[in-house]
Amino acid sequence: MDSRRPITIDPMIVAFDADDTLWHNENHFEATHRAFERLLAPWSSATEVDDRLFEVEMRNMDRYGYGVKAFTLSMTETAIDLSDGDVPASVISEIIRLGHDILDRDIVLLDGVVDVLDSLADHTLMLITKGDLYAQRRSIDRSGLADRFWRIEIVAHKDTDTYRRLLELHGVPVSEFVMVGNSLKSDVLPVLELGGRGVHVPYQVTWAHEHVEPDAPIPTLDHIAELPALIEAWR
Amino acid sequence: MDSRRPITIDPMIVAFDADDTLWHNENHFEATHRAFERLLAPWSSATEVDDRLFEVEMRNMDRYGYGVKAFTLSMTETAIDLSDGDVPASVISEIIRLGHDILDRDIVLLDGVVDVLDSLADHTLMLITKGDLYAQRRSIDRSGLADRFWRIEIVAHKDTDTYRRLLELHGVPVSEFVMVGNSLKSDVLPVLELGGRGVHVPYQVTWAHEHVEPDAPIPTLDHIAELPALIEAWR
Repeated sequence: MDSRRPITIDPMIVAFDADDTLWHNENHFEATHRAFERLLAPWSSATEVDDRLFEVEMRNMDRYGYGVKAFTLSMTETAIDLSDGDVPASVISEIIRLGHDILDRDIVLLDGVVDVLDSLADHTLMLITKGDLYAQRRSIDRSGLADRFWRIEIVAHKDTDTYRRLLELHGVPVSEFVMVGNSLKSDVLPVLELGGRGVHVPYQVTWAHEHVEPDAPIPTLDHIAELPALIEAWR
Repeated sequence: MDSRRPITIDPMIVAFDADDTLWHNENHFEATHRAFERLLAPWSSATEVDDRLFEVEMRNMDRYGYGVKAFTLSMTETAIDLSDGDVPASVISEIIRLGHDILDRDIVLLDGVVDVLDSLADHTLMLITKGDLYAQRRSIDRSGLADRFWRIEIVAHKDTDTYRRLLELHGVPVSEFVMVGNSLKSDVLPVLELGGRGVHVPYQVTWAHEHVEPDAPIPTLDHIAELPALIEAWR
């Protein structure tokens, strides 16, 4: 990474979310949910499993934060709860393995991502992602995209305070800042609140926790491939 | 946090590690080790438990990184391994609870820390800590010390690359940089390698993974209360 932000003509600082914006993520969690339901089928219905897991995740949020380790621990707790302590160690082992499978997965980029990053090469690109420091760093390394970004930030929460701190730390004027991501709540709304630009590129699946209903129209793209044209129009 | 580093006469940038430098941490892990040994006593000796747990932790390091969630998952895996899948869910529940107890603990500052930070108030203070983003952020909030620091960084690894990146990002000249911590490996040696100053303040317990034997003499203090005099001598 360079120490200074490259100076170009009318550049913008275009920041990307990672999970479900640059590469597939939620689909792995979805597959894990299905596998978890099957593991607990002797004790509970799929709906009960999903509801209880979401409850346990939300209860643990303040303590664990986001990420696969948190998810694995919440699945384990849910399994013990729903089985009234009956779940055998072999099932717990399977749950831990489900977590390993997500952490050890290959990173599969979304269609068009490399072309989009190529097209935006005369802008300054950042990566701003939320979650577990180790797992995110590992995914970034495996994505092969790390060198494309001027700066990479892994943060605990994506709220206005976090974005304000990052813009200040990296010396980025909010008027030149564009944040692109699949979560309205984390990637778009807090940046709009600061006076920056947010672009929503929905993913095929949204985690219930990330769902919000916006009050005003939001720049929304059907596909990330439409981003360069939008940025061009803003220059 | 201020956007610019305060300018004083001959200031230094004094960065502190957090766990076992500003507040007690490893003693909680030690207590948890003892509790974990007791939980697994029906299947293994305390030594076997400790050895296997360390093995599992090291095997998971690349996947999980550092922190309490990683530790809890490694304890769970160890329990299933050592009991040959015999461990009941009630013991797994206890293990998860041990993790919660560490995460939910009160932060107890080491003796003299507040006075030392007071004495160094005309320097620029940073906090640089390694580990889980959420757990570290929570500890920092609970410590009551957050406002004392110009900048706070939670990083995945404390190696020379990390320190080089942080000094550059925050615009800190290495000649003015002092890092203070209880780990030679993480807090002192990489900073010395970059040409900065490192001060070792050993804690009562060192995790085996953090143990190294230095080649050359290292500035070492018996107590953090001796730090202001050392910094004064360096100005």
